[in-house]
Amino acid sequence: MLSKSQISLVSSLQHKKFRRQHHLFIAEGLKSVVEFTQSGYDTEAIYYTPQFAPKLLNLSKKINTQEISEAELKRITALKTPSGVLALIRIPATQDINYNLLRNKFSIVLDGVQDPGNMGTIIRTADWFGIQHIICSEDTVDVYNPKVVQATMGSLSRVNIHYTDLNKLLPALKLPVFGALLDGTNIYQTSFGTEGLVLMGNEGNGIRPEILPLISTSVTIPQAGKAESLNVAIATAIFCSEISRNTLK
Amino acid sequence: MLSKSQISLVSSLQHKKFRRQHHLFIAEGLKSVVEFTQSGYDTEAIYYTPQFAPKLLNLSKKINTQEISEAELKRITALKTPSGVLALIRIPATQDINYNLLRNKFSIVLDGVQDPGNMGTIIRTADWFGIQHIICSEDTVDVYNPKVVQATMGSLSRVNIHYTDLNKLLPALKLPVFGALLDGTNIYQTSFGTEGLVLMGNEGNGIRPEILPLISTSVTIPQAGKAESLNVAIATAIFCSEISRNTLK
Repeated sequence: MLSKSQISLVSSLQHKKFRRQHHLFIAEGLKSVVEFTQSGYDTEAIYYTPQFAPKLLNLSKKINTQEISEAELKRITALKTPSGVLALIRIPATQDINYNLLRNKFSIVLDGVQDPGNMGTIIRTADWFGIQHIICSEDTVDVYNPKVVQATMGSLSRVNIHYTDLNKLLPALKLPVFGALLDGTNIYQTSFGTEGLVLMGNEGNGIRPEILPLISTSVTIPQAGKAESLNVAIATAIFCSEISRNTLK
Repeated sequence: MLSKSQISLVSSLQHKKFRRQHHLFIAEGLKSVVEFTQSGYDTEAIYYTPQFAPKLLNLSKKINTQEISEAELKRITALKTPSGVLALIRIPATQDINYNLLRNKFSIVLDGVQDPGNMGTIIRTADWFGIQHIICSEDTVDVYNPKVVQATMGSLSRVNIHYTDLNKLLPALKLPVFGALLDGTNIYQTSFGTEGLVLMGNEGNGIRPEILPLISTSVTIPQAGKAESLNVAIATAIFCSEISRNTLK
């Protein structure tokens, strides 16, 4: 049975303040939980309903697991339809970005993306296309928000997320910065070369003015219809796809 | 002031059964509401908070508008952060699909897409790329679901959505069917030609087995990383982008 303090701890992790205080976040769903346990993240605890017991047999014996009832799971889940397995995963210590790791490849830079679903989908898409690093402005939604973790479908365990001051980092990196804007060059005619950063802005306001001068090439997805804009996760995916197409040539 | 019967009507429209019974759906947000009123949809009523009064002055005088309080809006909105304007829009009468309207262009076919956010994002993306028709299996999420309408950001007013039996329609149309599958030909090397259908499956189960034989070309977005799959709205967008790139050549 879950103790009151366990319930209180897990519930508190819905909030960024307590995630930072306890250095823990929540992952739900068998696939997601297994991927975190297998990929170098420290797992603090796994709570599971009886039907999932056989599926967790192969986990390291060092991991603290606890069987709980469906009713208990409902008290701690962040999901409308809980999936039967919930883990507390340790937030890795923040490390300085190693600039050399960003050379000879493409990375994504997010300037103030706010929606957890968008953030999670961007991480999942990056993972599909083999993009290993996402650099976020400090006001980008917290990647350990349970809705973000859920939307990544396990990909968060494979993509590195950095939060930093873009105003300082972008000039220091000395990499080409491809900014997604509405008045840039046609993405289908853009030469992306072999390395660079794809910079995407906030859902409502786009890339903030003080970041605009740091863009080396403004790039636009040509519009044939009348929608005012594309969703930021959709636009990011089209950039990833175009870069992938260019690289695979 | 809103009457009890008005509140009851608007609240009932959260449910498909009552949307069908009243032939009405809810649109929220100034931009979305204005786009519906200007695009051939019949507007049954517009409810707005005082601050939006000046922004609605240009609407046709024939539309029934009513100023309500913030508290009243909170009772009828489907949004967590209501946007100040809510309209009841008449669901257009179902029309048979005119096959000729689908020639010499690309349309999207959805086989059982369930998530309202995905559906709305697909409509918004289609609108960006100038795709005018989306054909849905009968079990695809209802396009008049308030969460779908919200995610389209006004694009629902410009894209035609048809619900039908795909098993009957696809053979009758005699158009190339490009099916998004994990083991098809590389999308970047696919010749899409000048007309066809892009077929996307359900979030968890993909395209259902009885539809698979109706695919003329299986197409895959090459995977460079380790994510198990792409989100369906993301995959649809990459197909739209590739077709747009091919067509613009």
